[in-house]
Amino acid sequence: MSFQKGAAYSIVREEKFERKAAEALPKLYERTVTPKRMVATAQDPNALHGWKVVEKEAGKTSYGKGDEVIFDFGEHLVGYVSLHIEPEGSPPDAPAHLEFMFGEMPVEVSEPPGTYDGWISSSWLQQAREHIDVLPWKLELKRRYSFRYLKIRVLDTSQKFTVSFHDVTCTAVTSADRHAVPARSWEGELLQELDEVSLRTLENCMQEVFEDGPKRDRRLWLGDLRLQALANYVTFGANDLVKRNLYQFAAVPNEEGRVAANLFMKPKLIPDDTYLFDYALFFATTLHDYYEYTNDKETLQELWPTAYRQLEVGLERVEENGIVRDDESWWSFIDWQKGLNKQAASQAILVYALRKGAVMAEALGKTEQAVILQLQAEAASQAAKAQLWDDEAGFYVSGEEKQISWASQVWMVYAGVLDKKEAKQLLQRLRETPPQIGMNTPYMHHHYAEALCLYGELEEALAHMRWYWGGMLEDGADTFWELYQPEDKTFSPYGNFLINSYCHAWSCTPTYLLRKYF
Amino acid sequence: MSFQKGAAYSIVREEKFERKAAEALPKLYERTVTPKRMVATAQDPNALHGWKVVEKEAGKTSYGKGDEVIFDFGEHLVGYVSLHIEPEGSPPDAPAHLEFMFGEMPVEVSEPPGTYDGWISSSWLQQAREHIDVLPWKLELKRRYSFRYLKIRVLDTSQKFTVSFHDVTCTAVTSADRHAVPARSWEGELLQELDEVSLRTLENCMQEVFEDGPKRDRRLWLGDLRLQALANYVTFGANDLVKRNLYQFAAVPNEEGRVAANLFMKPKLIPDDTYLFDYALFFATTLHDYYEYTNDKETLQELWPTAYRQLEVGLERVEENGIVRDDESWWSFIDWQKGLNKQAASQAILVYALRKGAVMAEALGKTEQAVILQLQAEAASQAAKAQLWDDEAGFYVSGEEKQISWASQVWMVYAGVLDKKEAKQLLQRLRETPPQIGMNTPYMHHHYAEALCLYGELEEALAHMRWYWGGMLEDGADTFWELYQPEDKTFSPYGNFLINSYCHAWSCTPTYLLRKYF
Repeated sequence: MSFQKGAAYSIVREEKFERKAAEALPKLYERTVTPKRMVATAQDPNALHGWKVVEKEAGKTSYGKGDEVIFDFGEHLVGYVSLHIEPEGSPPDAPAHLEFMFGEMPVEVSEPPGTYDGWISSSWLQQAREHIDVLPWKLELKRRYSFRYLKIRVLDTSQKFTVSFHDVTCTAVTSADRHAVPARSWEGELLQELDEVSLRTLENCMQEVFEDGPKRDRRLWLGDLRLQALANYVTFGANDLVKRNLYQFAAVPNEEGRVAANLFMKPKLIPDDTYLFDYALFFATTLHDYYEYTNDKETLQELWPTAYRQLEVGLERVEENGIVRDDESWWSFIDWQKGLNKQAASQAILVYALRKGAVMAEALGKTEQAVILQLQAEAASQAAKAQLWDDEAGFYVSGEEKQISWASQVWMVYAGVLDKKEAKQLLQRLRETPPQIGMNTPYMHHHYAEALCLYGELEEALAHMRWYWGGMLEDGADTFWELYQPEDKTFSPYGNFLINSYCHAWSCTPTYLLRKYF
Repeated sequence: MSFQKGAAYSIVREEKFERKAAEALPKLYERTVTPKRMVATAQDPNALHGWKVVEKEAGKTSYGKGDEVIFDFGEHLVGYVSLHIEPEGSPPDAPAHLEFMFGEMPVEVSEPPGTYDGWISSSWLQQAREHIDVLPWKLELKRRYSFRYLKIRVLDTSQKFTVSFHDVTCTAVTSADRHAVPARSWEGELLQELDEVSLRTLENCMQEVFEDGPKRDRRLWLGDLRLQALANYVTFGANDLVKRNLYQFAAVPNEEGRVAANLFMKPKLIPDDTYLFDYALFFATTLHDYYEYTNDKETLQELWPTAYRQLEVGLERVEENGIVRDDESWWSFIDWQKGLNKQAASQAILVYALRKGAVMAEALGKTEQAVILQLQAEAASQAAKAQLWDDEAGFYVSGEEKQISWASQVWMVYAGVLDKKEAKQLLQRLRETPPQIGMNTPYMHHHYAEALCLYGELEEALAHMRWYWGGMLEDGADTFWELYQPEDKTFSPYGNFLINSYCHAWSCTPTYLLRKYF
């Protein structure tokens, strides 16, 4: 165990855990994919983000200054692109200067460069510029891209020559084994498609870790990992990848023993300096789920102290009234919903995690710990009912302003704070008198859909999936999106939807819900 | 000998010559150079192109979005740049997106990208964009750059981290051996400096071939080669490089046996589809000069048929009146002076080349050929006097409009069309009543300066060098420029001076003139 001091936080490095994680580095499967067609995009106010794909007009096959061409690979891919570039005309008397734009969605290869004005880094826009000094040339772009569409724009050649593009190829990569997925079928094409697109979403996020999104942030977030793992158990069954990622979180806690909200893999395993109340608790629940699906007691045993520490850290936030302390900071994630107060949902997550903790303690024969955790869970649950339930409104309230949100209700139901009858009533009330503060991520919608499943509201769950994830399909999804708000499809928490991730791990759960409950 | 058909022209491939050239591939000397200081640039109407270098204000050492820093290497370099990039702040949560701009002159790292509006390819602007996914990172830029100044602009990092640059290094390359240069000195610092800057210019153009300019066009042009070779004989003495380049031109003539105006080296030896009257004749004069300096009769013998063929091709353009046919096309280069009529200068170059041809034929014991060439030279010379001399004006005229230009007079003197007395008178007349159509390249100015030397006007030659090449030094030259017109320093034949080459082979001749005549 070594000690490492950063600018703002101290990391403890559990080298044994890190080694175990490194040993479980998965191999990547490679697949060679070529474009299905060449297309153009056109503005269309009815298309998502204002751009649709159209047939390319027959015309040039060799391109000069200002010309552009879009290759449509016909499916969402994560991988490495190469192409042959051939000159036409006089011997090339200047470098060819090319711009590459990769898009998961048509809008990304349609808006002019420089359009993005969001607050997170524009470096996430998948673009590259290359000077080609020698032609013909086989160009191998070194970075990994996440895309279906590739636009090549000729910034310049010269007046004496043009260029054409041949053997455009993507070597797609994933650590997911498609052959391991059990065949299943459901009634109706839509459910089949929800399963298939979920699988593709998860598959393309499964790399050397469970990435949140292969476009952005391309890293291991605990909130995503939890849902990916659940979907994985019933599909690809890459359980060693879950184990690897759990060991990685456990390998680099801070001095207080808290696990980071997300990890970087290169140049070495580095925890982000972001610590979230809910995500840390999900370390414990993810370990619980892993054990439930694998029965791997050795891992449970080794990682239990880390999991237990997250529960302790969660409890440290509980105040005298039994409720977690609220504040203005980004202390708990819950959802990207603007103005959402996180207190009630966080309280429910604490209950949920403590209960999973009790199950693990029991499995490890730590009966006393199990009992204490169960008691703490009940206390937190009772406090929620006592302090946060608004009888008049018929909803849970959150924070000083007593905010009523979908997230608060969903998490209370999901965590089992209510008995079955109350839960069903609350779910019905949500539908009949929906709170203003809604949900805007597939992540939050997942919890609503699974809450419905947990309380036997299967038709409602299916209807919600058809409406919400099915809506993405109607709007052109090849993989499920990080953000989707049917009432405002331009929504982005980053200030501009160009930077949104359109293949995002936390959105892959229809396959899990369908395979588990239907 | 194989045969290769291009789109617009047919190439004969003399494989034996190509092999000989390949065998003479020079080794490149490498030198590691680090920046001397960090600077900024500032607008200044009195500075060349409106920008001057100023001290960098003390301030940031780590840079975020929109920040930029300029490294001044203190000298003009041609080479490969690497640097270490270190993150500062939180663990980098997004790629770093960086822009690199290389400048031979301050203006190139000062004007905003997108400013260039000239007609030759913007791909010559020395810029690169790189996404750095993993930090810290040692970045090795793959392309070769020609520069003194390197600006790095942070296009984006993220709100959580900045980057700093360390171990910025240029591995400078040249095939010139500085140790081979004979030590010489002249009175006054200026002449010393003219020699030194000429040497640096030539050195940085000497790569695997004599390039015209390491920024642009980075290739082997006959007009540049001729002057580089002359400067090389009295300095670096890389005579095998001249030989290699002559073999390269001879290896890929067209079906008619004409050598191209310039050659590309990669992916294989390819002649450009540009054929110029004057440049083709310079193949013969360059072979003559090579033999004169090396006495290498084997090469003379092997390349004589190619040289002779260029003279024949030149003579084919002579019309019944003994004068070369003029037309509107870019048939002869002479100078970048707009509106310059090329006829008279081309006629003089024909005389000059035929005379050198006669000398070579004589050396090869081909007496009959020598006599014929001498007669043809005299005929061309007499025709020039008879048809192009305007007794009233006291100048040679050119073209249908009977244009009077510097270039026509200079080349007639240079080629020896006039006897010594007439030549000195014409040179004096040029100074006293200068024609409106002037000269705007160091290439053309060289011929004027050497014409003065050839007729003993050494003080005038020195004065001209001090004024013209010395003017470049005063205007901030580290190496001599492709274009320089003291009356209009913004001059560019390409529509924008950003694309001009500021280390250009044909401008390196002060060292030749000083070492040969002084």
